[in-house]
Amino acid sequence: MAGEVENNLIELNLNQNKDDIVDPWTVTSSNETGIDYDKLIKRFGSSKIDKELLDRFEKVTGKKVHHFLRRGIVFSHRDMHTILTNYEAGKPFYLYTGRGPSSTSIHLGHLIPFQFCKWLQDVFDVPLVIQLTDDEKTLWRDLSLEEAHKLAYENAKDIIAVGFDVEKTFIFSDVDYIGQRPEFYRNMIRIQKCVTFNQVKGIFGFDDSTVIGKIAFPAVQATPALSTSFPDIFKDKKIPCLIPCAIDQDPYFRMTRDVCPRIGFQKPALLHSIFFPALQGAQTKMSASEANSTIYCSDTPKQVKNKINKYAFSGGQATVEDHRKLGGNCDVDITYQYLKFFLEDDDKLEQIRKDYSSGNLLTGELKKILIDILTPLVQEHQKRRAEVTDEILQKFMTPRKLHVDY
Amino acid sequence: MAGEVENNLIELNLNQNKDDIVDPWTVTSSNETGIDYDKLIKRFGSSKIDKELLDRFEKVTGKKVHHFLRRGIVFSHRDMHTILTNYEAGKPFYLYTGRGPSSTSIHLGHLIPFQFCKWLQDVFDVPLVIQLTDDEKTLWRDLSLEEAHKLAYENAKDIIAVGFDVEKTFIFSDVDYIGQRPEFYRNMIRIQKCVTFNQVKGIFGFDDSTVIGKIAFPAVQATPALSTSFPDIFKDKKIPCLIPCAIDQDPYFRMTRDVCPRIGFQKPALLHSIFFPALQGAQTKMSASEANSTIYCSDTPKQVKNKINKYAFSGGQATVEDHRKLGGNCDVDITYQYLKFFLEDDDKLEQIRKDYSSGNLLTGELKKILIDILTPLVQEHQKRRAEVTDEILQKFMTPRKLHVDY
Repeated sequence: MAGEVENNLIELNLNQNKDDIVDPWTVTSSNETGIDYDKLIKRFGSSKIDKELLDRFEKVTGKKVHHFLRRGIVFSHRDMHTILTNYEAGKPFYLYTGRGPSSTSIHLGHLIPFQFCKWLQDVFDVPLVIQLTDDEKTLWRDLSLEEAHKLAYENAKDIIAVGFDVEKTFIFSDVDYIGQRPEFYRNMIRIQKCVTFNQVKGIFGFDDSTVIGKIAFPAVQATPALSTSFPDIFKDKKIPCLIPCAIDQDPYFRMTRDVCPRIGFQKPALLHSIFFPALQGAQTKMSASEANSTIYCSDTPKQVKNKINKYAFSGGQATVEDHRKLGGNCDVDITYQYLKFFLEDDDKLEQIRKDYSSGNLLTGELKKILIDILTPLVQEHQKRRAEVTDEILQKFMTPRKLHVDY
Repeated sequence: MAGEVENNLIELNLNQNKDDIVDPWTVTSSNETGIDYDKLIKRFGSSKIDKELLDRFEKVTGKKVHHFLRRGIVFSHRDMHTILTNYEAGKPFYLYTGRGPSSTSIHLGHLIPFQFCKWLQDVFDVPLVIQLTDDEKTLWRDLSLEEAHKLAYENAKDIIAVGFDVEKTFIFSDVDYIGQRPEFYRNMIRIQKCVTFNQVKGIFGFDDSTVIGKIAFPAVQATPALSTSFPDIFKDKKIPCLIPCAIDQDPYFRMTRDVCPRIGFQKPALLHSIFFPALQGAQTKMSASEANSTIYCSDTPKQVKNKINKYAFSGGQATVEDHRKLGGNCDVDITYQYLKFFLEDDDKLEQIRKDYSSGNLLTGELKKILIDILTPLVQEHQKRRAEVTDEILQKFMTPRKLHVDY
């Protein structure tokens, strides 16, 4: 077991010296098409989501797979076949995902894992726990615990606006919930007893000047992968866990997978998504703290339009004449990349790709298509968020039995 | 602030290379009179409890000071004058002490800080919180969390048997209480944000192979020194804290004192006691895990008698003739040392010292005096412990308002 961590550690360290840097705090690539995800799969030791897995997904659920799966936006996994095999045999599982609340409003990139989780919840009809790591944010940022805690509640409203079923979803702030159910802290301690400083040093790049809260934190992010941390939902049953997350969170869950069998739990399965690129280009992911590279879910239609028109990196040519003649490059064009995330219709997307690549479609026209999709998307999100009353928020965030029987 | 920790660190490291080793896990001396406590005060940077402080104690409380104070058993302090000054001005404080539950039964040495705490509680009429670090014990020992948790409850019964006022005392197990009130974990995080690995490495001797639970634990022991960790008792008020503890726990509280002002709290004051020596001699302290060097509070009268007669290191001479002529050495005689702890009458103790030193009193006679004191002490303890019903235990260990107003 320790071997898995050690190997990943070496791989991750190697990774830091290459073009792509991917860890929970940094995602950058020197390549304008962004991170090389095939290489990342190799380095992290996960499995590529291939046609066989997608076919099984459709066979088992009887539903067409989500366009994130069809388009390689959710591209890598660990043990997803086990989850499907168990599901076929009628054995339950649950979903766990999370978010570090670092700004009042979430941005488009933050929607991706939650939209995907909602789809999984709908398709498999399973409970979902969502961890808001306000403790992590106060440890890593110049942010008081009170401020981080407040952001967690703001972010919870955005998450609820994605449309989760309140009867099957528990959203929690660490600084609330850890003090509400002893089972969570007990599992934290069980995990913290199995992980040495050497291990987290390798996995997360900690050193001797790192504060002890950061050193202990990986166990806090690991704990929701143990079902007994949620006695209201699972009682004392050990239910397998599936974690959809962006690939940069994988180090936490490699550590979790290393520990689980040693304390009598099944390793959590994982579904990894790629990063949502910044407006300026795929070299970095969208970041809530850089306003100009980011479309917030709270932006006005005018802001959405201006940001796309002004900042979205174009794969088109410098002049209309050249563009008509040479065509645009979809691989680096951020507007096209965003359409892959948000335009569900495969045929339309393929037509756009052809038209842009051939030069039939100009950059301005391409951007208009995206603006016409994102404007209502953002507006509807804002409408749903405004409808999240304190009462609804409290219900989602109260430890309680969900409408699932164990 | 950081300076205090750094200096102590250097001192502690120096300490490890000298005759006396004193840290939360090891207490040994190569000297048969035991630890040199005056040197320890110098190294730790605390203050000796002198006549001036004892006089103030008596003036402020109107009561004779406890024989632990009179006899240098409680020998060192930090900021005790501040506590007394505040007390004179009618400003409240509270007591905090704790215990790591490592065995089913506590031993005589464990009684000392609790007997002293009870006296302080009675004299000052203040609330007392008692932390049972079952999380620490599972992290440091080959003990499951469930086992450590069970020991915490067993030990709580012994603590209650010391006679604490249920209306002014809250006893808690970490693995219960941290999951019962969010305020505790919030303060843990605030502390964990201020302490680096470098610091705990120096203070506690951690290294890269230390598990992350141990690395984070010092913050758990620091947290009860912040009154807001107990909202049931103190609401959100910042009340100064006085910690009576054995001197080996000082490293935890040096760290706590370093952090407190940085997060808006007053440094806790401390009263340090010496170690209760093992039967075999003052080179080591009594340890619950070494049956032959230890008198448990659960021992039978026969066991008490046999252990003292068989194992208590004697400062007497090899033959009766030599003893009558040369007298015994009270400084190394464990029986006499125990009498200092448990015989309250100063005149009697002084008479015994004279008689033993002069050779009038033989070792067997001295041992009989101790046996006659300890036998009823242990029996009465067992009786009171047997009277601790589950209901009483639950009451002490339930987070609740105490009969003190803030």
